[in-house]
Amino acid sequence: MAVTAAACCAPIARAPLSEADAADLATLLKAVADPVRLRLLSMIGSHAGGEACVCDLTDAFDLTAPTISHHLKVLRTAGLIGGERRGTWVYYWIIPEQVARLGALFAPMTAPASA
Amino acid sequence: MAVTAAACCAPIARAPLSEADAADLATLLKAVADPVRLRLLSMIGSHAGGEACVCDLTDAFDLTAPTISHHLKVLRTAGLIGGERRGTWVYYWIIPEQVARLGALFAPMTAPASA
Repeated sequence: MAVTAAACCAPIARAPLSEADAADLATLLKAVADPVRLRLLSMIGSHAGGEACVCDLTDAFDLTAPTISHHLKVLRTAGLIGGERRGTWVYYWIIPEQVARLGALFAPMTAPASA
Repeated sequence: MAVTAAACCAPIARAPLSEADAADLATLLKAVADPVRLRLLSMIGSHAGGEACVCDLTDAFDLTAPTISHHLKVLRTAGLIGGERRGTWVYYWIIPEQVARLGALFAPMTAPASA
């Protein structure tokens, strides 16, 4: 059975996306649509102090360091994380504004009062 | 500069994702990480009555009917839309629970009161 308009509530279901917005959001979504990158994001964001060193991340994966670096670069290119070299290691942190763009797209909205 | 833990606020940044959860969410994200599928979702959700016929969707795209059908099938397989044939046409609607899973993952959360 069909869901009523009031129940279909996320912003993505409120108005047709433009081609430009859809292309832009698809690029951002592709960056997170990978299990390793999702885990990296969650590990970086939940690390003490809100940032993590590469040295904190690699042990959790059965992957080579260059593969982890590739995934971190994808996240960084998408603007989802920032990074900075300090001495031997590069440290990463989440950029909340980019994560919030995805949250806003899929966030439930309350049904209109007059629906 | 690093973002503080309090500012890094979406659930994805609160605790490391398990491998199983990350794989499951990546599958769902791959289904939406495409400009045509994002536009289809937004067109279906915002259509009058919360559902749309294939006949309402194809004109907006410079794509063949089989290509549109392929994208609708990907969304349906991911559980993001439901569909039902009525006479000549198949009608589609958004499944809000699946969209809400993505919203919950990336939703901003208020900083802890004691942070």
